[in-house]
Amino acid sequence: MSDLEVQVTLIQLDNYGPWTGTLGNDREHLLQILQANIYSSIQRAFADLGGLVFFNRFDEMLAITNGITLAQHEDIKREIQHQFPVTLSMAIGVGHTPFQAQQNASKLLQRMGGAQSPTRRSVTAYERTLRLDHSHVQIMHFDIDEVTNTFTDHTSAYETSLHVMTLYTELMKLFREHQALMFFLGGDNFMGVANGLSTKEVNSVIEEYRGKNIRLKCGIGIAQTARKAAELAAENLDNIRRNGDQSILSTTKL
Amino acid sequence: MSDLEVQVTLIQLDNYGPWTGTLGNDREHLLQILQANIYSSIQRAFADLGGLVFFNRFDEMLAITNGITLAQHEDIKREIQHQFPVTLSMAIGVGHTPFQAQQNASKLLQRMGGAQSPTRRSVTAYERTLRLDHSHVQIMHFDIDEVTNTFTDHTSAYETSLHVMTLYTELMKLFREHQALMFFLGGDNFMGVANGLSTKEVNSVIEEYRGKNIRLKCGIGIAQTARKAAELAAENLDNIRRNGDQSILSTTKL
Amino acid sequence: MSDLEVQVTLIQLDNYGPWTGTLGNDREHLLQILQANIYSSIQRAFADLGGLVFFNRFDEMLAITNGITLAQHEDIKREIQHQFPVTLSMAIGVGHTPFQAQQNASKLLQRMGGAQSPTRRSVTAYERTLRLDHSHVQIMHFDIDEVTNTFTDHTSAYETSLHVMTLYTELMKLFREHQALMFFLGGDNFMGVANGLSTKEVNSVIEEYRGKNIRLKCGIGIAQTARKAAELAAENLDNIRRNGDQSILSTTKL
Amino acid sequence: MSDLEVQVTLIQLDNYGPWTGTLGNDREHLLQILQANIYSSIQRAFADLGGLVFFNRFDEMLAITNGITLAQHEDIKREIQHQFPVTLSMAIGVGHTPFQAQQNASKLLQRMGGAQSPTRRSVTAYERTLRLDHSHVQIMHFDIDEVTNTFTDHTSAYETSLHVMTLYTELMKLFREHQALMFFLGGDNFMGVANGLSTKEVNSVIEEYRGKNIRLKCGIGIAQTARKAAELAAENLDNIRRNGDQSILSTTKL
Repeated sequence: MSDLEVQVTLIQLDNYGPWTGTLGNDREHLLQILQANIYSSIQRAFADLGGLVFFNRFDEMLAITNGITLAQHEDIKREIQHQFPVTLSMAIGVGHTPFQAQQNASKLLQRMGGAQSPTRRSVTAYERTLRLDHSHVQIMHFDIDEVTNTFTDHTSAYETSLHVMTLYTELMKLFREHQALMFFLGGDNFMGVANGLSTKEVNSVIEEYRGKNIRLKCGIGIAQTARKAAELAAENLDNIRRNGDQSILSTTKL
Repeated sequence: MSDLEVQVTLIQLDNYGPWTGTLGNDREHLLQILQANIYSSIQRAFADLGGLVFFNRFDEMLAITNGITLAQHEDIKREIQHQFPVTLSMAIGVGHTPFQAQQNASKLLQRMGGAQSPTRRSVTAYERTLRLDHSHVQIMHFDIDEVTNTFTDHTSAYETSLHVMTLYTELMKLFREHQALMFFLGGDNFMGVANGLSTKEVNSVIEEYRGKNIRLKCGIGIAQTARKAAELAAENLDNIRRNGDQSILSTTKL
Repeated sequence: MSDLEVQVTLIQLDNYGPWTGTLGNDREHLLQILQANIYSSIQRAFADLGGLVFFNRFDEMLAITNGITLAQHEDIKREIQHQFPVTLSMAIGVGHTPFQAQQNASKLLQRMGGAQSPTRRSVTAYERTLRLDHSHVQIMHFDIDEVTNTFTDHTSAYETSLHVMTLYTELMKLFREHQALMFFLGGDNFMGVANGLSTKEVNSVIEEYRGKNIRLKCGIGIAQTARKAAELAAENLDNIRRNGDQSILSTTKL
Repeated sequence: MSDLEVQVTLIQLDNYGPWTGTLGNDREHLLQILQANIYSSIQRAFADLGGLVFFNRFDEMLAITNGITLAQHEDIKREIQHQFPVTLSMAIGVGHTPFQAQQNASKLLQRMGGAQSPTRRSVTAYERTLRLDHSHVQIMHFDIDEVTNTFTDHTSAYETSLHVMTLYTELMKLFREHQALMFFLGGDNFMGVANGLSTKEVNSVIEEYRGKNIRLKCGIGIAQTARKAAELAAENLDNIRRNGDQSILSTTKL
């Protein structure tokens, strides 16, 4: 499995900051609506091809795109640009770890011009794309045990958010050391992209939190596409929820 | 101004966790699309009435809803439920600080049943609503100076996100002590709801970060509605960006 | 009631035909998605203010906008343009009949430049707007009795459509003589805007079709806003469906 | 080419009429928004697989789905149902003409229960699906010459619509005799699905209208998928617009 790689696409709205300034001051609600609509459309477009997109910071999204070709990227870019009043640039990075892959994508895009460059518009940066049979992706789907019973229904909504976001940032840092990427999905759910990370390493993170009285559950899926891996991870997480005596379950289908 | 209050609405998808489990395992992309679409619709509905909604954790949103009546809340709830396959519950909280207001909203909703209760559906919890002329809201719009030049265009996309989310969590904690709420807007932008917070207190936070080589800019607006306050805050932030020698600008229009 | 008028807004996508030509040839699905999304957003924006928008021909929509001000029109135009890659122009017409009102709107817009003029962009043409207390609108909501039992479930889908569209075109022509506008809503439903039309005149149309073995039902509502009038009309249509022995019911709430 | 067939999918919202009655009377704007959103999503889902969906009557849509498998239909159904508060049923019909194919689809669906049956929910009716290499579809893209110059910019918006819809209904009837389906696309554009129709037959319709001073232009494309055929048709229509001396251009790529 060691020669399998992962493909990450960085999607960046072109010159977004300066553009928002042209909308007048009464704009924040419009930007929030626009960002949500763009993400929704991009998610659908990549998911239809087996990918998965993380909203990340909304003006810059990260997608796992194993097996999605350059031409398909161009089609999605074109489709999105015909629906929305902004253009976007993409960079396709490949690497043995998700962190490397997004790092390569970032470098490729930076070479084409800055995010706020008025001249860099609608580019697609890439060196190569990954065939599906050379691809794999390991998805970890985490949730926090009993967050509804212990937080949502007992403390205030904002304190729950503070708790969840603090944990999210900590997990980002912990898994960063393992070249894994962590994304917030909403609720108390996080999704990690973690090629090569062993169950043992995941377990040591879970154990660390158990010591702080936070019980994490983690379903893991390994497959050729992100959507398939996420499906396996969700199945495992559901099984953990039902059985209740395990913290990690992992399935590989390659 | 001391007798003016702020109204916060907690919006919670009913029984969302268990419901997602009924969608099968190949569901994460569908949930992401659904969550973005629901947020987009709710944002538009409240913004049309002068409010502003923060996506927060997507299954639980927080809105500043000064002057929006109970009947208008019911209309929005009905409209959303006719568009999407989920129901939602709302709780309207009032308080002198945003933190108190969301705390009151949280308590009111918890009394109606748990977030994952199969019997609590589509309720609206409230004790009272706030007339516009008894309302005010202070909005702080922060961004991180030069994040595009120093981060986006030089480090990897994920490292930028890690930097931004770490800062976000820290700001949540710092302002929590002042009973202010902080929300991530996307990009390198955060919005605080901070009734009663003085410019001096905001400045001390900014100074603290300057010591760590992070320069924050903050436009502040104080008005009767969230949308108007956000407009004033955006105007001030734009002025700071243009002039470059100030870190805070504040405008009050009541 | 004779001095009450109706306000109709003509909404036209600017230079739409030529613009679509710039999208490449593989575009029809994208145009259909875009048109539906634009209509959905425009409907919501006007409905939130008591109006009602008919999709008409999608690149040109007609809205009943009693009581909606010029500033509110400008806000909607701005909001739509920030969401989509097209601009749009509007013209507000006032008249004693809906036909006159849309005719006035059409003339006002034509004076600003052609629909495919590359220089006319994002204009709002108007002479005056109508205060709510000077407004009324009569909405007729028609459906075809038993179309599901007699058509949908027995002939082919396309033949049902041919039947419905033929009837629609005939009703357009018949009511045109009464200065009333007819719009297709989907299914077997039509909505007429028919200020000043008497129940007797509507009944004579229904009788004419009864002779051809087509039984029409018509709920009528008269109110200050289109949305309220449509609500009354829907209520009456539901009552007719339940009772079954009447063809027309009309309610006025001014 | 004579053994190639076309696959048409009939998409029907389940029990839609009765369901709308549960939304209260103030519902028409919500239904219009919902219908547009559902169509937009369904169009995108089928177009991503090479199909094309016509909104037809919105509660009942017709799609050309050559090469789209039963499993892919099920995926689309599931995706739509997770986004919207309605369920839908589909029937896949195959035939040598588009009319036959939709007729077969209609019969298959009727056998599963009525459109307003409370028990028929979310079914997919089919006998067989068509492999791409056994498929073809002939798409005709019509527009009315100079409708903007002669109508939109000179008569009222509603009179233009009356003109366009009258022509549409006439074309539906004329082409019905040739087993071809005609759909309104918006503006002054119609799309026909017309396997086996000769250029000569199309030309005789165009000649008939020329006698009435209405000049129609028609780009024709013949391909394995609807989207590809529509692309060829659009290319031909654009060429006719540019050159101006022809009324029909046809391209086959099989």
